[in-house]
Amino acid sequence: MSFIYGRRPVMEVLQAKRRSIHKLWLAEHSEGEIVGEILALARARGVTMEWVPRTRLDRMAPGHHQGVVAQVSETAYLELDEFLAGVKGREVFLLALDEIQDPQNLGAVLRNAGFFGVTAAIVPRWRSAPVSEAAVRTSAGAAEHVPFIRVRNLADAILQLKDEGFEVVGADAGGTPLWDYKPSARTVLVLGNEGQGLRRLVRERCDKLLGIPPRGPVQSLNVGSAAAVFLYEFCRAAARS
Amino acid sequence: MSFIYGRRPVMEVLQAKRRSIHKLWLAEHSEGEIVGEILALARARGVTMEWVPRTRLDRMAPGHHQGVVAQVSETAYLELDEFLAGVKGREVFLLALDEIQDPQNLGAVLRNAGFFGVTAAIVPRWRSAPVSEAAVRTSAGAAEHVPFIRVRNLADAILQLKDEGFEVVGADAGGTPLWDYKPSARTVLVLGNEGQGLRRLVRERCDKLLGIPPRGPVQSLNVGSAAAVFLYEFCRAAARS
Repeated sequence: MSFIYGRRPVMEVLQAKRRSIHKLWLAEHSEGEIVGEILALARARGVTMEWVPRTRLDRMAPGHHQGVVAQVSETAYLELDEFLAGVKGREVFLLALDEIQDPQNLGAVLRNAGFFGVTAAIVPRWRSAPVSEAAVRTSAGAAEHVPFIRVRNLADAILQLKDEGFEVVGADAGGTPLWDYKPSARTVLVLGNEGQGLRRLVRERCDKLLGIPPRGPVQSLNVGSAAAVFLYEFCRAAARS
Repeated sequence: MSFIYGRRPVMEVLQAKRRSIHKLWLAEHSEGEIVGEILALARARGVTMEWVPRTRLDRMAPGHHQGVVAQVSETAYLELDEFLAGVKGREVFLLALDEIQDPQNLGAVLRNAGFFGVTAAIVPRWRSAPVSEAAVRTSAGAAEHVPFIRVRNLADAILQLKDEGFEVVGADAGGTPLWDYKPSARTVLVLGNEGQGLRRLVRERCDKLLGIPPRGPVQSLNVGSAAAVFLYEFCRAAARS
């Protein structure tokens, strides 16, 4: 069980239908377009609702709730086998996140994944930020729309994906310039964590390493911005091919 | 006067030499490679230094200082006339920020500007986030390297830039796809604020409006990610032309 708060995040959870919603609390005298939409969606799903004094929500989620708090089930994860069985022979664009540890960065990356239409995100089970309330908030709802595949070991998952015909591309500051790459019909983009980039074994198992060439005094991008650039470039190349 | 804290931000201020540094406080028993570099740079510039108990720095900058706090002059701003006089006939790539109000977003945009080598950033005098400690921190030092041009009115500045031969490109969700654009030798990219995008008059005065086509369920990008994609695309197009 976890709590989601704020009008936009709660509405995204209601729309995406990937979690069960146990209860919804609304502040007395809340109004506005989004509150109306939340009420309509919650009624349609038969969610238990309670109108409470705003001070009670303040205790549940100080400062952030905008008059709406929902108690929801944890994010559902797919297993890799299960996912691959469902996409046999189809075009697939996956994003694998190698130990991204900051929930805000995770949320920012997921928002970009949701904007650029990745099929699913692969997250190692250990040493990654959980899809927490902070990640959901920063993702602008994408955490509710992009399916998650949880794997025990990313380096092993890469081998399995190669067997399934995926090309595995790693983001690496020393890689060849991104704009020379033409994505395959089945591609996995692997992003490393905020500080160290890709771990050695993960890097070695990538088919290609691509980088964004710096052109100014700053030598590194934030992982969210790097994700946006990579995902954009893959979409651009696909749209122009 | 303002305070900058943390090892990396203080070192960036020392390296960039765009601010005067009045005093540097270091926690007793601080060590490490970066502290050594900070000491060497500060000695070379003749900065007054004081070693103090860590608890005193905790009071100046709770939780963030990593043993280093500097008192510095405010960020210097250029006037537009002054800047334009210095770049007559040269290739220039400017980034104009229309009322970006969140200091962390401002910092993220500046980091991207520093990575992709924009010549300078234009910031309206009113209703924009100041280049505060939070912005400096998020910018990963770029706030110290990218010159700022402060203008009274962005819509008027656009007219002046057009007179100087600049092509003015606005980022707009409804614009033509970004990847069809070939940047000119003198380009200004105008980014709107987090919520509303470009204001009406600013939008009307742009020569072109470009957008990043969404390909998934999320319909908008964070302003930092949008900046990264635009700046990347302009660099890519320039590198390939």
